[in-house]
Amino acid sequence: MTDVREAALEYAHQNNERFLNELKEFLAIPSISTSPEYKPDVQRAAEWVAEQLRSLDMENVQIMPTGGHPAVYGEQFKAGKDAPTVLIYGHYDIQPVDPLELWTSDPFKAEVRGENLYARGSSDMKGQVIASLKAVESIVRTSELPVNIKWLIEGEEEIGSEHLGEFIKKNAKMLKADFCINPDAGMISANAPTITYGLRGLAYFELRVHGPNKDLHSGLFGGTVHNPAQALAELIAGMHDKKGRITLPGFYDKVRKASKAERADIARLPTTPKHFLKQTGVRALWGEPDYSPEERVSIRPTLEVNGLLSGFTGEGSKTVLPAWAMAKISCRLVPDQDPNEIYKSMMQYLKKNAPKSIKWELKNLHDAGTAITSRDSVGVRAMAKGLEQVWGKRPFFKREGGSIGVVVQLQKYAGVESVLTGFGLPEDNAHSPNEKLHLPTWNKGIDAFINMFYNVEK
Amino acid sequence: MTDVREAALEYAHQNNERFLNELKEFLAIPSISTSPEYKPDVQRAAEWVAEQLRSLDMENVQIMPTGGHPAVYGEQFKAGKDAPTVLIYGHYDIQPVDPLELWTSDPFKAEVRGENLYARGSSDMKGQVIASLKAVESIVRTSELPVNIKWLIEGEEEIGSEHLGEFIKKNAKMLKADFCINPDAGMISANAPTITYGLRGLAYFELRVHGPNKDLHSGLFGGTVHNPAQALAELIAGMHDKKGRITLPGFYDKVRKASKAERADIARLPTTPKHFLKQTGVRALWGEPDYSPEERVSIRPTLEVNGLLSGFTGEGSKTVLPAWAMAKISCRLVPDQDPNEIYKSMMQYLKKNAPKSIKWELKNLHDAGTAITSRDSVGVRAMAKGLEQVWGKRPFFKREGGSIGVVVQLQKYAGVESVLTGFGLPEDNAHSPNEKLHLPTWNKGIDAFINMFYNVEK
Repeated sequence: MTDVREAALEYAHQNNERFLNELKEFLAIPSISTSPEYKPDVQRAAEWVAEQLRSLDMENVQIMPTGGHPAVYGEQFKAGKDAPTVLIYGHYDIQPVDPLELWTSDPFKAEVRGENLYARGSSDMKGQVIASLKAVESIVRTSELPVNIKWLIEGEEEIGSEHLGEFIKKNAKMLKADFCINPDAGMISANAPTITYGLRGLAYFELRVHGPNKDLHSGLFGGTVHNPAQALAELIAGMHDKKGRITLPGFYDKVRKASKAERADIARLPTTPKHFLKQTGVRALWGEPDYSPEERVSIRPTLEVNGLLSGFTGEGSKTVLPAWAMAKISCRLVPDQDPNEIYKSMMQYLKKNAPKSIKWELKNLHDAGTAITSRDSVGVRAMAKGLEQVWGKRPFFKREGGSIGVVVQLQKYAGVESVLTGFGLPEDNAHSPNEKLHLPTWNKGIDAFINMFYNVEK
Repeated sequence: MTDVREAALEYAHQNNERFLNELKEFLAIPSISTSPEYKPDVQRAAEWVAEQLRSLDMENVQIMPTGGHPAVYGEQFKAGKDAPTVLIYGHYDIQPVDPLELWTSDPFKAEVRGENLYARGSSDMKGQVIASLKAVESIVRTSELPVNIKWLIEGEEEIGSEHLGEFIKKNAKMLKADFCINPDAGMISANAPTITYGLRGLAYFELRVHGPNKDLHSGLFGGTVHNPAQALAELIAGMHDKKGRITLPGFYDKVRKASKAERADIARLPTTPKHFLKQTGVRALWGEPDYSPEERVSIRPTLEVNGLLSGFTGEGSKTVLPAWAMAKISCRLVPDQDPNEIYKSMMQYLKKNAPKSIKWELKNLHDAGTAITSRDSVGVRAMAKGLEQVWGKRPFFKREGGSIGVVVQLQKYAGVESVLTGFGLPEDNAHSPNEKLHLPTWNKGIDAFINMFYNVEK
């Protein structure tokens, strides 16, 4: 298989300039999904992707309605029934460009300066989509794909993939695959190829504590009723113990224990305590003492206060005893925690600890499941080897602290686990002015994708 | 002395209708201190009061500049060097009248309906000022005042008496008296004559807790830094122990212990726990178990959270780990606590309890001293007896939970203790539409003032 692999890599290198020009063409379409005035451009970007897929001899290429912006689908089963199937996920929509005056060059006229290509969407993620398309082109123009392939390139990622869950649910059979490659996750640095194999889930609450039936004069009533802001503070304070562990009943019961090997890989990551100190500007870190900061944001669940509001918050003083107090509180969850069970756990905590002197209510504002892909799965192994073949070193393995809807939904509705990777860098200014793509890294990424296809074990 | 007292009372009863007409005249002046467009009316009200004082043979009557609206001063020393001196405090300014459409009759055309006189300022406190003026008139027209007298009728009470402290400081000698009668405090009910002999002070803080140097993504950083909203909640929760006692170091050290007799008088007050439940709408009261709710708002200091703000407080969910959290916290103080010492006590608490993982700052936004007049003082005894002579029952004795600047300033700068009383009722709609004065109570009030002057022991 080395010959065909080499031929594909050779093709990619020879066509590099054309690939870059096609990327520039794609980047010229202002497919900003959040602004209604760009709807025709969003549609145009979908058609551009569909045309690319058709030109690669993909079959059943469709621009499929989702209820919002369409998703582009395509497939090819030439490798045969017994060959594995790889699903490639991407999105063709982009973030807005304001403030425009902070851009050095036109965000829709991609410009190369030094080693970088500057344009909105270059890193997030039209560059990544083109890398996967051009890897496949390099193979199909020189031989045949060693695997079956499916594509799901959506148009609403930058606005929360609102309609994608329903779409995946409805088209679960169509999207079925052995694994999904999702190159939207980026890498730690240009010299640190990265695979993200897990995501945290979320359970987001609003807790309201009600005291008196109206704001009271603190002089006339202070000391006779339980101040709801104080009661809320007491409830929040009790949600962690002195070591920073969460006290909600049964909160940790379902937390999957990380293996020694996994923790060793986390320890390899360059995100040292120093990194966290620098990024946050705090004087001292905080959290569960038995876990490193990087572990605390990846393999451990958390409970954070996201907002507080009560009484008088303007300039100066007002001696009010507030009628109510509110906190937004959210838990980041890890496999195999379940948002519904965490809601129940929070309810149990409140029932046990809320005093009779106040009333309270808990709203479940938002939740998201956790996602994890076995570090030993076919997909992770294929991608990891592909990265190693190009960078000459074993990639970093990490779990991400946040949530990504599509990963959870593919796992939940279609049973497809995702291998998150990509060639965007932290300094690429994704979502900001002067977004850019590091071209040497991008070129390596195309090679890594080509290799990945040949690494998939049957 | 009974003869002259009876003559004065007789005079008051015979001139009742004229007194009412003069009150109506006074009420017709829209002396709204907060609105610049009423400045000429405020001035006119001051002149009206000065003219009244002159007509009562007061001497040295002056409309004195304060930096804001003027204060009216007058005095009479006919009783002689050895006789006690009584200072009468009042204010001639009033609250605005909006919303005007909620008034049944014109707020500046006083109208009698049933037993009440409706007009802005009727209860708060032009009616009270006229009651004291007409008590004095009743005496000086029938004999001579048995005491020396001074008047301080200000024009900025409804806007916080901003310039009065400086004025009292500057004119301390002029205002020197054996005690001050301040009829701005009202009574518990028409059948419950009341003397207020103490006021709580205030120490009002803003506590800010700083965590990371910017709002962070709770997925990427949650669990590694001490969430400032959580840290603030922990600090607030620790400010009370489980029994509702305040834990700031030395907080209770200077609290003057109430005598058995004082606590017995507080127990007589009609403000039962039921009253507090009804007024606040809470399911259960809260506070120091060794004290009744009425004691907790009068002879005991408190610590209340007046406001909380941190992070995201809008609709829905945002997974932010906030950079900072803020609480407004204030302590109501009782004699002999000192706001500066309480600030130090709060600082000590924070230094001891704030973790190294956060930074914090404490601002002293506002403070007010406490005030207390001996229940056994000449002024309290004279007024109490006067009330009992008219109502046929011993008055209620209470301390007020709030602060009143003039009382503290007279005590602090001129060494004059105040006896707070008055004939306004809780249902008088002070500061609201349809403010009214209960005329039978007002008439009794004039009699009580007349009696008071004769009760002052030499």
